[in-house]
Amino acid sequence: MFIVFEGIDGTGKSTQAKLFSEALTRKNIPHVLTREPGGSSAAENIRSLVLQHEFLPITELLLMIAARNEHWNATIQPALQRGEWVICDRYIDSTRAHQGFEAGIDLGLINQLHELLRIPTKSDHVFILMLDIDVALGRARSRAQQDRYDHFDRPYYEKIYNGFQQLAATGKHYHLIDANRSIEDIHQEILSVIF
Amino acid sequence: MFIVFEGIDGTGKSTQAKLFSEALTRKNIPHVLTREPGGSSAAENIRSLVLQHEFLPITELLLMIAARNEHWNATIQPALQRGEWVICDRYIDSTRAHQGFEAGIDLGLINQLHELLRIPTKSDHVFILMLDIDVALGRARSRAQQDRYDHFDRPYYEKIYNGFQQLAATGKHYHLIDANRSIEDIHQEILSVIF
Repeated sequence: MFIVFEGIDGTGKSTQAKLFSEALTRKNIPHVLTREPGGSSAAENIRSLVLQHEFLPITELLLMIAARNEHWNATIQPALQRGEWVICDRYIDSTRAHQGFEAGIDLGLINQLHELLRIPTKSDHVFILMLDIDVALGRARSRAQQDRYDHFDRPYYEKIYNGFQQLAATGKHYHLIDANRSIEDIHQEILSVIF
Repeated sequence: MFIVFEGIDGTGKSTQAKLFSEALTRKNIPHVLTREPGGSSAAENIRSLVLQHEFLPITELLLMIAARNEHWNATIQPALQRGEWVICDRYIDSTRAHQGFEAGIDLGLINQLHELLRIPTKSDHVFILMLDIDVALGRARSRAQQDRYDHFDRPYYEKIYNGFQQLAATGKHYHLIDANRSIEDIHQEILSVIF
């Protein structure tokens, strides 16, 4: 099982990925909890670069795919081959939402690059946490550590929010989750989809 | 005019690119002398990353193309649009030689990625400096500053040397230059091709 958590910043996806990982531990299901961009030593180096500097949209797309290539080969594929589950905080749909819907790069190009480079794009389940934009914005603004990904303008959030909503309609492995609820309620809904 | 200098490490391409640039200055030809990977602020950041860490061949290819996208858009294209000449120490043929012939990535894939991302691959002239492998190896070994690109095994050099030789046969804009001669003789031959 390869399960991905997606959503705009501030929706609680990392919290839910962690809670889900803890639930798997209680069920004695061997798994790896990982994240993008990053998730392997080489990919984390690329992540640092992307967080520190400004790049053109196409460059940023290439850096994200470069990091994903490392992450897939060093972390995800080996875990799946060992029969473990992989729980991932962001994967290709973040690229589609940010570099695609937000930065305006053609989604077909994003897919085509992954295909040419043989980086798998399909996971078993993608939970997309949908939180009211103003609430997500407020949470992002109140975070202590801010990096250059912390955009605080509503139009930026709206493009990504709408992007995720459109992506969710493109496959049955997508689950739109109403994140305007308690952490526990959201966690239980996610569990009920898988178990 | 977009003119590129290529060759294995230790052939003196940077020296020749610099001499050529000085000749242009004497002729009052406005130009930019630049290099890859790097050549723009963002691209130099990617260069540092690549020199510091080990990556999978496909990742390295993506990082090189990411750097080239920045370099093309920030440095090369603006200079050409201003009517200036661009003299570049390494360009796509280094990617073809290193990631293609040496690391084994399909040349068709390398071309296809540039085409999809609309990064121009064609320059007006490519001077490929060909130096006896053992001489080049000796020079590389004696260099004070060594980074992880400084491979010292003969088979590695041979693959790249043979790669450049094959590339040179694929277009009339390639000029194979015998670099087993004095710096001045090489410089004069290069000048005679252009002027």
